[in-house]
Amino acid sequence: MGRSEGEPCLQVQVSQDMEKERETLQAWKERVEHELDVVVAFWLEHSHDQEHGGFFTCLGRDGQVYDDLKYVWLQGRQVWMYCRLYRKLERFRRPELLNAAKAGGEFLLRYARVAPPAKKCAFVLTRDGRPVKVQRTIFSECFYTMAMNELWRVTGDAQYQSEAVEMMDQIVHWVREDPSGLGRPQLPGAPAAESMAVPMMLLSLVEQLGEADDELAGSYAELGDWCARRILRHVQRGGQAVLENVSEDGEGLSGCLGRHQNPGHALEAGWFLLRHAVRRGDPKLRAHVIDKFLLLPFRSGWDPDHGGLFYFQDADGLCPTQLEWAMKLWWPHSEAMIAFLMGYSESGDSALLNIFYQVAEYTFRQRYLQSHPRQDSPLKQGTRSSKGITCYKVTWQFRDPEYGEWFGYLNREGKIALTIKGGPFKGCFHVPRCLAMCEEMLSDLLSRLAPASAPAPALSARSPPADPARRGAE
Amino acid sequence: MGRSEGEPCLQVQVSQDMEKERETLQAWKERVEHELDVVVAFWLEHSHDQEHGGFFTCLGRDGQVYDDLKYVWLQGRQVWMYCRLYRKLERFRRPELLNAAKAGGEFLLRYARVAPPAKKCAFVLTRDGRPVKVQRTIFSECFYTMAMNELWRVTGDAQYQSEAVEMMDQIVHWVREDPSGLGRPQLPGAPAAESMAVPMMLLSLVEQLGEADDELAGSYAELGDWCARRILRHVQRGGQAVLENVSEDGEGLSGCLGRHQNPGHALEAGWFLLRHAVRRGDPKLRAHVIDKFLLLPFRSGWDPDHGGLFYFQDADGLCPTQLEWAMKLWWPHSEAMIAFLMGYSESGDSALLNIFYQVAEYTFRQRYLQSHPRQDSPLKQGTRSSKGITCYKVTWQFRDPEYGEWFGYLNREGKIALTIKGGPFKGCFHVPRCLAMCEEMLSDLLSRLAPASAPAPALSARSPPADPARRGAE
Repeated sequence: MGRSEGEPCLQVQVSQDMEKERETLQAWKERVEHELDVVVAFWLEHSHDQEHGGFFTCLGRDGQVYDDLKYVWLQGRQVWMYCRLYRKLERFRRPELLNAAKAGGEFLLRYARVAPPAKKCAFVLTRDGRPVKVQRTIFSECFYTMAMNELWRVTGDAQYQSEAVEMMDQIVHWVREDPSGLGRPQLPGAPAAESMAVPMMLLSLVEQLGEADDELAGSYAELGDWCARRILRHVQRGGQAVLENVSEDGEGLSGCLGRHQNPGHALEAGWFLLRHAVRRGDPKLRAHVIDKFLLLPFRSGWDPDHGGLFYFQDADGLCPTQLEWAMKLWWPHSEAMIAFLMGYSESGDSALLNIFYQVAEYTFRQRYLQSHPRQDSPLKQGTRSSKGITCYKVTWQFRDPEYGEWFGYLNREGKIALTIKGGPFKGCFHVPRCLAMCEEMLSDLLSRLAPASAPAPALSARSPPADPARRGAE
Repeated sequence: MGRSEGEPCLQVQVSQDMEKERETLQAWKERVEHELDVVVAFWLEHSHDQEHGGFFTCLGRDGQVYDDLKYVWLQGRQVWMYCRLYRKLERFRRPELLNAAKAGGEFLLRYARVAPPAKKCAFVLTRDGRPVKVQRTIFSECFYTMAMNELWRVTGDAQYQSEAVEMMDQIVHWVREDPSGLGRPQLPGAPAAESMAVPMMLLSLVEQLGEADDELAGSYAELGDWCARRILRHVQRGGQAVLENVSEDGEGLSGCLGRHQNPGHALEAGWFLLRHAVRRGDPKLRAHVIDKFLLLPFRSGWDPDHGGLFYFQDADGLCPTQLEWAMKLWWPHSEAMIAFLMGYSESGDSALLNIFYQVAEYTFRQRYLQSHPRQDSPLKQGTRSSKGITCYKVTWQFRDPEYGEWFGYLNREGKIALTIKGGPFKGCFHVPRCLAMCEEMLSDLLSRLAPASAPAPALSARSPPADPARRGAE
């Protein structure tokens, strides 16, 4: 075909491809938007402690409270999530979110610290706020800081911001100057290891506190660069593996500790670093992060047999010692969706968009299973035969359209292993954060795709496309 | 049929039944005897640290050391196990066992305590004995005590016995008088809960130290009764559930902690209590223990769909929060085999023998799976077609005849989830203890079954019966 004839064809093809991409993006945008509504409704209905403030997070499939302990990570995360939704998405600017967030914030202010005025926070509290356990780490304090800063942003109440900034100072002191206040004994055989979680968490606080705040952003700029450098040191073995633990000097460690990998965590670090690279205007860093913290963990962490991301791996390919290593957890998939959609948004590399689709389809897919009377998985009755009523059951990989929120724990094959919706480590955080961020990124991509000559119609006026999750149905 | 004709028939039937029972018991005795040899050979070949003493317990399927950390529980347990085998079974009275046990004992004497002369022991040490982690519990110290007492029994060296008795005094002080030396913070929201593990562990030490030692047995008699009473308080809910945690007053606790069940642990407590009941000559206690600590946990803990004992359960039938709750671990099955064979030996109730067979067949069974090129489970090639070479793979539920020792962790369906043979919580202990105890009990049962008029031939002269484990083949 000659060039003079080819160009119009190519234009038509490009135009058709763009239209197809727009339709797929639009379908996913509507999908995550709807799912976010379902998820937030679950937490609004079931998790609020009207008596003491704060949130129940130990919730069964249908939202029933099976334990009233209050995990401080999850209290802070839910306050943050409600405020963020209230602040960023018009349809969530509702008093019920704001009031619950404020009640959660007051619960934290009053009870999170074990021995005020010392800043060390508990890991878990009784329903009425008495400390049950304390972890000798920084994470309760980090989620406390996120909650307080976001509360300040939606309320304007300066007390919250001073709480956030003072706690941040304490955390930075523990991490960079003197960890003795955390209470960990210094044992002669314990390796001086750095968990990637620490600089990751600090980097996310740098972004949180610095948002639209030039003064704080400036004062934390050096800290942000330090965190990024520390995270990048977890790329080891000639650039072929992200390791969870390295020495204080950035070298590999021996044994299981040194070989430990967590693909979902690497992907989460990936999008933290991507945002850092964008803030710093550093395209070289952006490309490095996409290569090492997105593509590398995805390629080694995706289960070739059953799909989904492994929870833990060993960098030498040995069997991990964690019993749950091969399980498929909700949050690595949430983080992967964010990371690959962000990677595509920032780079335009369609390979990243395709991985976003692959992960999202795995995460959202539904499976038809023949009905079995003793089956104890949470399944929904369905019919799939035109000849008569043949019972089939429909189960979703993580989602639960019947009751809302996601199941958190699948076995390796993708079957639901735990029917709980919340627990000691799962609250109102990873799922809505993922959905809200994806909704925002998809909207942005769609607006960028709209041809300048013919603006796309208002999104709400478009007819709904086919359900993209059905592409993953079995 | 008239009575005068019936009686000879009945006699023949009884005689045939007895012969059948003898054959089955004999087959299992030979089976566990052989398996014990295979298991002990694995640890002898792969686990000895010739340089520093003590044992490597992080061993892959083929015995390869994948981490050289030394977990103190497992160091103490292996010293105990080697000494016990050396002392109780003629064929293991070999210098290689004794010397390795002594080297392990010296390693513990030199390195287990974090800050000698204080008695608190580490949880895990580096290969050369530097402390890595300390648990704020009594268990490292308990296994240290077991090791030292058993070392004294095989060597006669009084230093070991004084180490054992002094550590025992310290443990009893922590448990019954003042736990502050363990280092656990007293937090106002933490329930004053008793874990069943504590009186269980103490009861096993009472038996260990009191064996053939009237003076120590006498001085620990009150402690033994106290432990038994404390364990019995874990039977809750009108006698319908054994709960892992109760209050200091023996009442149920709220939340997941209060509903937590561990069927294998209840069964282990069952045989500890059975031995206590026998020592105390208390048939009423024996019957109660069989009812509440053997039959009850077995009935509620056995998976009706896939067989095997669940690892964790919730007494209200809710979903446990532990990710591994539905997995099938080696040690609950080892403990169940001991408990039901002991229950039968002590009571003569054939229902208990049948449950022993059920558990043993599950534990020993092999499964044929069609070969699949990407299968990464540890499987053995086999052929099962007379028409040509059709590849099948043979896998065992827990056993591994190819390399020895058992896999520890199966998924709910019985597929091998972790290929390791040893790890932070699995060493040379539950499997050989189970096999050695079952061998001893089966020998005893066989000698009791031998008719007085016609003594059974020497066991070694009998032709080997069909492999009983094949009854469980799929």
